[in-house]
Amino acid sequence: MKINDIPVREVEENYVNIHPIQAAGRLTAEAMKALIAYGDGYSTCDQCRKPFRLDKITKPPIAEFHSDLAKFLNMDEARVTPGARRAFQAVCLSLAEKGDIVLVSALAHYTEFLAVENARAAVKEVPLNKDNVVTGDAVAQKIEEVTREEGKKPALVMLDHFDYSFANEHDIAGAAKAAHQYDVPILYNGAYTVGIKPVDGKALGVDFVVGSGHKSMASPAPSGVLATTSEYADQVLRTTQMIGDVTGRKFGIKEVEMLGCTLMGANLLAMMASFPTIQRRINDWQEYVAKSNIVINAILDIKGNKCLSEHPRKHTLTKVDTTGSFDKIATTHKRRGFFFSDELKQRGVVGEFAGATRTWKLNTYGLTWDQTSYVADVFKEIAGKYDLL
Amino acid sequence: MKINDIPVREVEENYVNIHPIQAAGRLTAEAMKALIAYGDGYSTCDQCRKPFRLDKITKPPIAEFHSDLAKFLNMDEARVTPGARRAFQAVCLSLAEKGDIVLVSALAHYTEFLAVENARAAVKEVPLNKDNVVTGDAVAQKIEEVTREEGKKPALVMLDHFDYSFANEHDIAGAAKAAHQYDVPILYNGAYTVGIKPVDGKALGVDFVVGSGHKSMASPAPSGVLATTSEYADQVLRTTQMIGDVTGRKFGIKEVEMLGCTLMGANLLAMMASFPTIQRRINDWQEYVAKSNIVINAILDIKGNKCLSEHPRKHTLTKVDTTGSFDKIATTHKRRGFFFSDELKQRGVVGEFAGATRTWKLNTYGLTWDQTSYVADVFKEIAGKYDLL
Repeated sequence: MKINDIPVREVEENYVNIHPIQAAGRLTAEAMKALIAYGDGYSTCDQCRKPFRLDKITKPPIAEFHSDLAKFLNMDEARVTPGARRAFQAVCLSLAEKGDIVLVSALAHYTEFLAVENARAAVKEVPLNKDNVVTGDAVAQKIEEVTREEGKKPALVMLDHFDYSFANEHDIAGAAKAAHQYDVPILYNGAYTVGIKPVDGKALGVDFVVGSGHKSMASPAPSGVLATTSEYADQVLRTTQMIGDVTGRKFGIKEVEMLGCTLMGANLLAMMASFPTIQRRINDWQEYVAKSNIVINAILDIKGNKCLSEHPRKHTLTKVDTTGSFDKIATTHKRRGFFFSDELKQRGVVGEFAGATRTWKLNTYGLTWDQTSYVADVFKEIAGKYDLL
Repeated sequence: MKINDIPVREVEENYVNIHPIQAAGRLTAEAMKALIAYGDGYSTCDQCRKPFRLDKITKPPIAEFHSDLAKFLNMDEARVTPGARRAFQAVCLSLAEKGDIVLVSALAHYTEFLAVENARAAVKEVPLNKDNVVTGDAVAQKIEEVTREEGKKPALVMLDHFDYSFANEHDIAGAAKAAHQYDVPILYNGAYTVGIKPVDGKALGVDFVVGSGHKSMASPAPSGVLATTSEYADQVLRTTQMIGDVTGRKFGIKEVEMLGCTLMGANLLAMMASFPTIQRRINDWQEYVAKSNIVINAILDIKGNKCLSEHPRKHTLTKVDTTGSFDKIATTHKRRGFFFSDELKQRGVVGEFAGATRTWKLNTYGLTWDQTSYVADVFKEIAGKYDLL
């Protein structure tokens, strides 16, 4: 099937998908309906009235969604953004400038680096402990080191709760306490938490919570959320001060870092449509973690395999090392590493990095119990076929 | 009909819509299919391979679309962005910094102001001539004035081909010539042209062409395009230079101002799906302008009405003044200005600003010939009912 020259995507219809970044971004049925109803360009603007800002629109209930989002994350203000990266960008541009240092984790996602670079500031990394985890002490130590070397403290700390590489859990509450001892604001990167597990910004003590709609909130790309406290709202959500020198024009309450109206159209409405499901499903997080451990333990039952992420798992995303098993087969197989993809696909499982048989990632988020047993069995079955058990 | 608490939007299904910003952003059937097929979060990433950048993906044909887009605008490089405003932002952040001046038109859209403010630079406006048009001479004069006052020339000129207020045509080629005489780069804001009329960046002599997917390219929000020349690509599409101080990590060819991967998912695929239609429909522009003049002339047949935009119309978006006609009725009608919206809606026409009977805008883009006569007749019929003819 094709739309013009575009192949129709049928991954979620025909397979069990364990792709590391796709699992929690699959749409709900409600989101799909919202996409269809609000697909047209400026579909959200039918009832836009004074003060002419997207997050104030009440029909459809966009204003209410914004306030629900803030409550959901236990923060004071929330805005939707075209992806988590655009939220990092807004915070970096408003808090950091040329010559400033922003601290990120040694496992930070590249978009955090780019957001800092975009603000003409520079990144320094907080090192990991021996378990590949960022601790509060490491944050404190790095703040001191940077302050000593640069003659001023960092402008911001950005820290992932679960990182994109191992999905290890990092000590956000400890990091927030450390950052605040030095009066440095801290951004919580919840790209791998917001929308799948409960997140309480105030309890963690962070100044910003960022989430990804298309990664973890069952929403289309691009979509994301930026939440903050009353303390930082004035700065990061500052309204325009520009005045036209010829016309005297002013632009009211349009927010500079949001570039006025933020995420609109189908993506916003799909986020809204998925939100009731999101609010429910975060309560099932421990069930999904348990399923993750079932699959990972099955992989570990195969001789030579290792789990590179912390174990037992606290997340559904995991990095495994199959150099001692599947990769041995790949070295002599005529399809090389693709033999493994072929075997998985024949059994209806996709989403691993095609051709990779050394270190690779999988995400079991959203699997039913039946699918969990099935995926666990598939790995063992393939191992059995190649005498790896 | 509702999706959870979200009313289902049925504007395009049930009415002729003359909304000023919605007309050219209605999806094609192909775009709607693409939305459905690629709605899931990271749907575009199935076949992402080295060098891991969205615009290099060949399945679906995203890379090809990027090169087609550049050709379509007769520029050297193109990137998709989450809306035209994000393209303004990318150019402003890379070309302007604190203390710099960026010139915009006295009819500039507010998002241009915000993009400049976002880069901590400041805006100055180029005045209009007596016909509410920006000329090359006015641009030259303002560059000289700013250079004299500030001790340095402006960092950038941003100019709308057709402005958002009157949709008057401004002298882009003249402005480009003027800007380049002073060695100032110029950005062409084609939010009201790219996707509905032919745009030739090289012929106009501009350094950047920006278009809006959701305004004029039959695409969902947010979507947009930034095209540039080889000369400016290195600067505006610069790749990351950050290196992790602890890990030594680098991030290859990720582009700083694009924040790595740009517009993804359903929105990008819908843009791609609409593109063959877009390429065809720009050739019908004069037909749509003719239809616009039919409707506007019918409005002008009503006693007391004025066309605030230049006339005859060169665009489908128009600002009219009905203070001398419909507004007179509104002053004594129990529904005030809403009487006019009621009368239009009863006749199946929506999209004017509800309640406004003084100055308001309409956009006839996309109307068939039958719909054109019908809408023209509707205005006259309402005028007749209230003895305004």
